[in-house]
Amino acid sequence: MKWWGWGDPDVSFTHRDKPKLAPFVRENVDLDLDRDAAPPPTLDALDVPASKLGKELLDALRSAVGPDHVRWDRRERVLHAYGKSIRDLLRLRAGDPGRLPDVVVYPGSEHEVTAVLEAAAAEGAVVVPFGGGTNISGSLEPPRAESRPVVSVDVGRMDRVRSIDSDSRLAVVEAGVRGPALEAQLAQQGWTMGHFPDSFTHSTLGGWIATRSSGMQSDRYGDISAITRAVRVATPVGTLVTRAVPATSTGPSVREMVLGSEGRLGVITEATVQVHRIPEQRVILGYFFPTWDAGLAAMSAIAASETTPFLTRVSDAHETQFSLATAKAPTVGSRLQSFALKQFLRHVKKVHLEEACLSFIGFEGSPARVKADRRAVGRLVAKHGGVCVGTGPGTLYDQKKFDTPYIRDYLLERGGLADVSETATGWSNLSHLYGAVLEAARKAFAELGVKGWIMCHLSHSYHSGACLYFTFAFKPAGGLDAGRYDAALAQYDVVKRAIQQAFVDHGATLSHHHAVGVEHSRWLAEDISPAGEAMVRALFDGVDPDHRFNPGKIVP
Amino acid sequence: MKWWGWGDPDVSFTHRDKPKLAPFVRENVDLDLDRDAAPPPTLDALDVPASKLGKELLDALRSAVGPDHVRWDRRERVLHAYGKSIRDLLRLRAGDPGRLPDVVVYPGSEHEVTAVLEAAAAEGAVVVPFGGGTNISGSLEPPRAESRPVVSVDVGRMDRVRSIDSDSRLAVVEAGVRGPALEAQLAQQGWTMGHFPDSFTHSTLGGWIATRSSGMQSDRYGDISAITRAVRVATPVGTLVTRAVPATSTGPSVREMVLGSEGRLGVITEATVQVHRIPEQRVILGYFFPTWDAGLAAMSAIAASETTPFLTRVSDAHETQFSLATAKAPTVGSRLQSFALKQFLRHVKKVHLEEACLSFIGFEGSPARVKADRRAVGRLVAKHGGVCVGTGPGTLYDQKKFDTPYIRDYLLERGGLADVSETATGWSNLSHLYGAVLEAARKAFAELGVKGWIMCHLSHSYHSGACLYFTFAFKPAGGLDAGRYDAALAQYDVVKRAIQQAFVDHGATLSHHHAVGVEHSRWLAEDISPAGEAMVRALFDGVDPDHRFNPGKIVP
Repeated sequence: MKWWGWGDPDVSFTHRDKPKLAPFVRENVDLDLDRDAAPPPTLDALDVPASKLGKELLDALRSAVGPDHVRWDRRERVLHAYGKSIRDLLRLRAGDPGRLPDVVVYPGSEHEVTAVLEAAAAEGAVVVPFGGGTNISGSLEPPRAESRPVVSVDVGRMDRVRSIDSDSRLAVVEAGVRGPALEAQLAQQGWTMGHFPDSFTHSTLGGWIATRSSGMQSDRYGDISAITRAVRVATPVGTLVTRAVPATSTGPSVREMVLGSEGRLGVITEATVQVHRIPEQRVILGYFFPTWDAGLAAMSAIAASETTPFLTRVSDAHETQFSLATAKAPTVGSRLQSFALKQFLRHVKKVHLEEACLSFIGFEGSPARVKADRRAVGRLVAKHGGVCVGTGPGTLYDQKKFDTPYIRDYLLERGGLADVSETATGWSNLSHLYGAVLEAARKAFAELGVKGWIMCHLSHSYHSGACLYFTFAFKPAGGLDAGRYDAALAQYDVVKRAIQQAFVDHGATLSHHHAVGVEHSRWLAEDISPAGEAMVRALFDGVDPDHRFNPGKIVP
Repeated sequence: MKWWGWGDPDVSFTHRDKPKLAPFVRENVDLDLDRDAAPPPTLDALDVPASKLGKELLDALRSAVGPDHVRWDRRERVLHAYGKSIRDLLRLRAGDPGRLPDVVVYPGSEHEVTAVLEAAAAEGAVVVPFGGGTNISGSLEPPRAESRPVVSVDVGRMDRVRSIDSDSRLAVVEAGVRGPALEAQLAQQGWTMGHFPDSFTHSTLGGWIATRSSGMQSDRYGDISAITRAVRVATPVGTLVTRAVPATSTGPSVREMVLGSEGRLGVITEATVQVHRIPEQRVILGYFFPTWDAGLAAMSAIAASETTPFLTRVSDAHETQFSLATAKAPTVGSRLQSFALKQFLRHVKKVHLEEACLSFIGFEGSPARVKADRRAVGRLVAKHGGVCVGTGPGTLYDQKKFDTPYIRDYLLERGGLADVSETATGWSNLSHLYGAVLEAARKAFAELGVKGWIMCHLSHSYHSGACLYFTFAFKPAGGLDAGRYDAALAQYDVVKRAIQQAFVDHGATLSHHHAVGVEHSRWLAEDISPAGEAMVRALFDGVDPDHRFNPGKIVP
């Protein structure tokens, strides 16, 4: 993982093979992709304060996890200080590393985690659990004024599937495993967990649980809260061990207290998760809807129907235009196909192309189920004026689904800020909410005097509602060259806050699956009411009265 | 509702039209159903202590809800002191009313609930929320030594469906509504909530939420925790209002903290719940499996399949024998049918009738879905040696499903103790757990020197496991006449505790859907670990530091 940005240093995005992208970006956010990219920041340029690690704590940590697994070099400390939000990346570029952890430890077992917590407790040190470091809500950074030593507990060595109970369809998994390693271990025995968030390649099981993650196949497999049947957590009040029972009435659910707790209750060491047999067939079909509202109505109808797609997704017209603009240079054949498709949409289906909304629906299971669901969904889609465009776009989407964060960094290196905000609300409120968010974002852009862009898709359908996922981008006024990072961040905040405020002002939640951290905590009381915030605070204060576990997150 | 037993005083059970029942009961629990029933206890025989209601509190409560809705007569106080467990019934028969509430108030709105809580707070009074009073885990009784005034808050007047959002498939419902009134209001507009616990006729929405209830159609509609999308709760820290969003990542779920809280966090006033269109078709089919293990394996296979029955249930051989013994006197036609069925099972299917296990599986939805699911389930059943016996038994089950508690009271009046204990565990552990529970119960019966009976069914299937529901009965040594109630209760405890201990000793939970109350709290730390208990306690202590809300429940 890059310390200054998203993902694998060897993976790169380029607009050069996508002829429509540079013109699209120039027109819509006034940004020149052909300009030279800013070089990545260097570690040497960071003003890294000395570690507050004292000898007693160092010795105790070395004894807890072994000397090789205790590190406090500059790169380790920086890498464990942040997630990957735009704020995080800008601050690093600005040379402001904030309050870094003083030491990073890599326990190899729950026993070692417990030993680390004991060492930290003895020295009054703060503990921040670390999974993949991919959050974008400020779930990791120690408070700037923290005077106690800060220990980052990276559970990345705890990455094994310990056992699979084939009869109960449950796997016991260590919390530090990343998505690909988890799915590979499960697949060896013919299983899948079915959890594929955008961050899949770099995020961990423990991180998914700590942030109430949701994956793109949640329609069928459930959010992480449904997938996770039991947890083991090293907490300030001892090791929490819940039972892997399918349901229970043991009072308020402690399992659900751990879900979304972002390290405030301790370090998640292990979870028991539902697994499913890898389906026989799997296909993602593409559709076009004539309007956004038609797409929303179709998704609602599908959610209420007897069909069981694993993925339902529809982009608004803006995101559809963006998707089409990221297409690679077409071959003569695909150009002809694309021309024929446009003619078909325009003349036969009477779809206005600039209003058309691209949709993906995924089917899996037995051939009979896939066939029946495709047919039933096809009827519902047609009822709302939609038209199927086959497997091509869906296959492409499936291949590229984890690449989006790289585009954000590519824009950043070329002077553009792009980020995401997502929420959920009831079906009846989706269209209204969408309008309110677009209006709020555009008002913010106008206030800043920038040419801004906002686009949206619906994903994660439920019986009573769905998630709306917004992506916005703009070139900050004054540019984004060295020395302008703080000014850019202030502008980013104007837009981000306008969008988040629109969520809570219009009946939606502050986040469907990106958690609270410090970025979203200002909207918590509006979302769950002051009494709700008081309940969360009562839990944290009761379990961790000294606020030694990831202090400042969720409730300040 | 009877104050001394289950249900409607006008509904009665009799063994007279069930010729096999009395011999069955005589043989298996040594009890004579033909003996005269003990008369119900009388209110006058109860030693009811004077109410501690002071003038200030009385005036404040009258002003909060109106004078007509404040009551402290003997019947009201007794009716609101208990649930309907065997312990509750025995104590009332023993003339021991325990620590009764001092006053019962009937608020008509959330505003009035808040006013009641303010009045109680001003006088330092204890508040016990009351829904239907049907719990069997001791979720209502004030601690015997409670010296503060105790206010029972009966929300029964708050019984309206306030609104239905047809697009989001959500209904906003007041917490005091009972099952039949709720479903009737929803049905007027073509909807159902799909929640049908055994207590349905007398229990309330608020009570279901407070105890994490599960209904017999949970396979399709989910437990109350899934059905409930938002709550409003009058708490000691203000009115909690969560949003009716389909999913959210706002830290630990406060909605899930309220689910199962049994009044410890305040009074639930309203909930937003998922509703579904009343299905076009509905049918419950009966099946016989050759053995219990075959039945369990078939239910697991169905849970993993692409079929979506709303009900999966299989009785062990004992419960099957009991069900057959409760049949009414047969007509010549049904006798012939029954004879033919037996011949078929015995000679064609090679089923040993004494090992046969009766199963019900319910299908609903479009005719096409019902047909496809019936066929697919039929194949899975056949694969495990099961055979379909048509719609007759299922229709009967559907009609009689809410009558079981009346049988328990019928036995009690004739000197027998019968009760239930239920749990959940993973599919791989069900058979082992079942054996361990039967062994524990039989050891307890032997210890007491009684002829005891225990039977079981599986219900509520999930992806990873299911609920096992045990019913046990025996005639206490020394009998159950007046003066012997305490001795009988002590014997009951031996059996009940042996069963519950077997649950937690063998990897299951202390209860799948009957909550904790005071009856199950001794097993909480074993179930969710001491750290889990500490977390629950931290939440309660933080929200209600003076322990004024239903003190003593869940964690003592």
